[in-house]
Amino acid sequence: MENKFAIAIHGGAGTILQSEMTPEKEEQYKQDLMFALNRGYDILKSGGDAVSAVEAAVSALEDSALFNAGKGAVFNAQGEHEMDASIMEGKNREAGAVAAVKGLKNPIQLARKVMEKSEHVFLVGDGAEIFAKQFDLPFMDKEYFHDEFRYQQWLSIKDTDNFQLDHSVDKEKKFGTVGAVALDMTGNLAAATSTGGMTNKKYGRIGDSSIIGAGTYANNNTCAISCTGSGEFFIRGVVAYDVSCLMELQGLSLHDAAEQVIQKRLMEINGDGGLIGVDQKGNFVLSFNTEGMYRGAGSYNTQPFVDIYK
Amino acid sequence: MENKFAIAIHGGAGTILQSEMTPEKEEQYKQDLMFALNRGYDILKSGGDAVSAVEAAVSALEDSALFNAGKGAVFNAQGEHEMDASIMEGKNREAGAVAAVKGLKNPIQLARKVMEKSEHVFLVGDGAEIFAKQFDLPFMDKEYFHDEFRYQQWLSIKDTDNFQLDHSVDKEKKFGTVGAVALDMTGNLAAATSTGGMTNKKYGRIGDSSIIGAGTYANNNTCAISCTGSGEFFIRGVVAYDVSCLMELQGLSLHDAAEQVIQKRLMEINGDGGLIGVDQKGNFVLSFNTEGMYRGAGSYNTQPFVDIYK
Repeated sequence: MENKFAIAIHGGAGTILQSEMTPEKEEQYKQDLMFALNRGYDILKSGGDAVSAVEAAVSALEDSALFNAGKGAVFNAQGEHEMDASIMEGKNREAGAVAAVKGLKNPIQLARKVMEKSEHVFLVGDGAEIFAKQFDLPFMDKEYFHDEFRYQQWLSIKDTDNFQLDHSVDKEKKFGTVGAVALDMTGNLAAATSTGGMTNKKYGRIGDSSIIGAGTYANNNTCAISCTGSGEFFIRGVVAYDVSCLMELQGLSLHDAAEQVIQKRLMEINGDGGLIGVDQKGNFVLSFNTEGMYRGAGSYNTQPFVDIYK
Repeated sequence: MENKFAIAIHGGAGTILQSEMTPEKEEQYKQDLMFALNRGYDILKSGGDAVSAVEAAVSALEDSALFNAGKGAVFNAQGEHEMDASIMEGKNREAGAVAAVKGLKNPIQLARKVMEKSEHVFLVGDGAEIFAKQFDLPFMDKEYFHDEFRYQQWLSIKDTDNFQLDHSVDKEKKFGTVGAVALDMTGNLAAATSTGGMTNKKYGRIGDSSIIGAGTYANNNTCAISCTGSGEFFIRGVVAYDVSCLMELQGLSLHDAAEQVIQKRLMEINGDGGLIGVDQKGNFVLSFNTEGMYRGAGSYNTQPFVDIYK
């Protein structure tokens, strides 16, 4: 198993139609995906660890304005940016998660601090921000998170009871989350997920991105998984852990387990979205039941690539 | 399967030693457990639904000062009471959860409103309280939640970095949560869990009680589960859903699945605590790997009973 490594990333799934995309925009997306993928890939290729690889890849996606996480986080009902993130490593199954945090440049880095520097797994709201201030994690002002497109998108629905799962096209069918999963050369797995949630979200709503078992899961015996989609369904389906259970308890391959969860088990409760996964053999999977998923992968025997449509 | 019904409840697990308990105190615990159990049992026996039964039983436990939920919620680092709760029904696998909410008399009733009256599953903090105010849910003042024993317990550690999982005896080994699981005569399952978290908790810490899949899970095809224990480990072990997976994917009985999770799989990551479960056949299980668990159960063929020690 030595010297095998693999990484996969996603930037959200949904109704991503080529007809609605300009070649320039498509190129921007692919560029930012490839940049994030290579951040993680290079770490793994030079012998770095899986946790650092997924943290680096997700941080890069958080730093892009194109994806709904970090800098690109959507506006909530108060016109603010409330972010969720989680991370898990597969060796000891340690995990860290934060939800409803504001101002942090990279929520995934805070999730890692929760995993490594606290006795807790899950911190939310102001409390999580107070915890963050013990560390050298950058906080940014409101301007940093401002994006005119997303602001207009929010203005168009802000005085309604509507909310939406990220930007553009069919307002009901776009999910914004970013994530990464990795296997390093020592055989350790890790998974990380980050999101800005839903445009115009109210009431402190949290999706699956910060929920261990739902949006993120890692276990060296099975797989590392990061999900994106209609968060409520991913919570009810305990989707990330479901893939692990099908592998562990029924002996399914990573590919078959992921496909069964996304194309069948999640559909039974009408959930849509996708997931990325890696296993200890260096396999990766990119599964989704939507029109598209911003995604990319690379491994010890596969050159890094990115893709958008089905 | 018709006319079968079952209910089980818990009031927390941990190092509950008979040597530390007075007969009067033991009697109080048993009385409050039996009252809560009968609230649910009577609903089921007269043909009521599982969701109403678990909501009623957990509400009664929240109204007791003896258990760490609702009225009996412990003090956090700010000397406040921050509560978490979740509920799930097994027919459509709908779920509702709230975390870090203050002032609500019965957080479990808010979790049910989230399940039935919102498009979301999980609401946290102030936002969840704003959502609550649309409904006729009682909010109570600080005096209602004040308990001298818990206050002294908090004072003794409040200026330290220590936190503890509920009251008394061995400060490291007591977990405070309440929960209920039920099967109704129509064959539907439901599960509910509620907690005040850890004494002196900081940073908006959330345990497993509000996490679907970790502290609470229900699926008519398998079981309804409510957990209590060291929440961080229950999150990492995705414990409630783990029982369901062992039943669904390996054909284990409710009893064997629960025991395997609590006595083996959870112990592998050093987690301690317990869980209660029911299945569609009218079986119930009360599993724990600690010295004791406040618990009770009753069914179509078992008279209601309560118990504390191993």
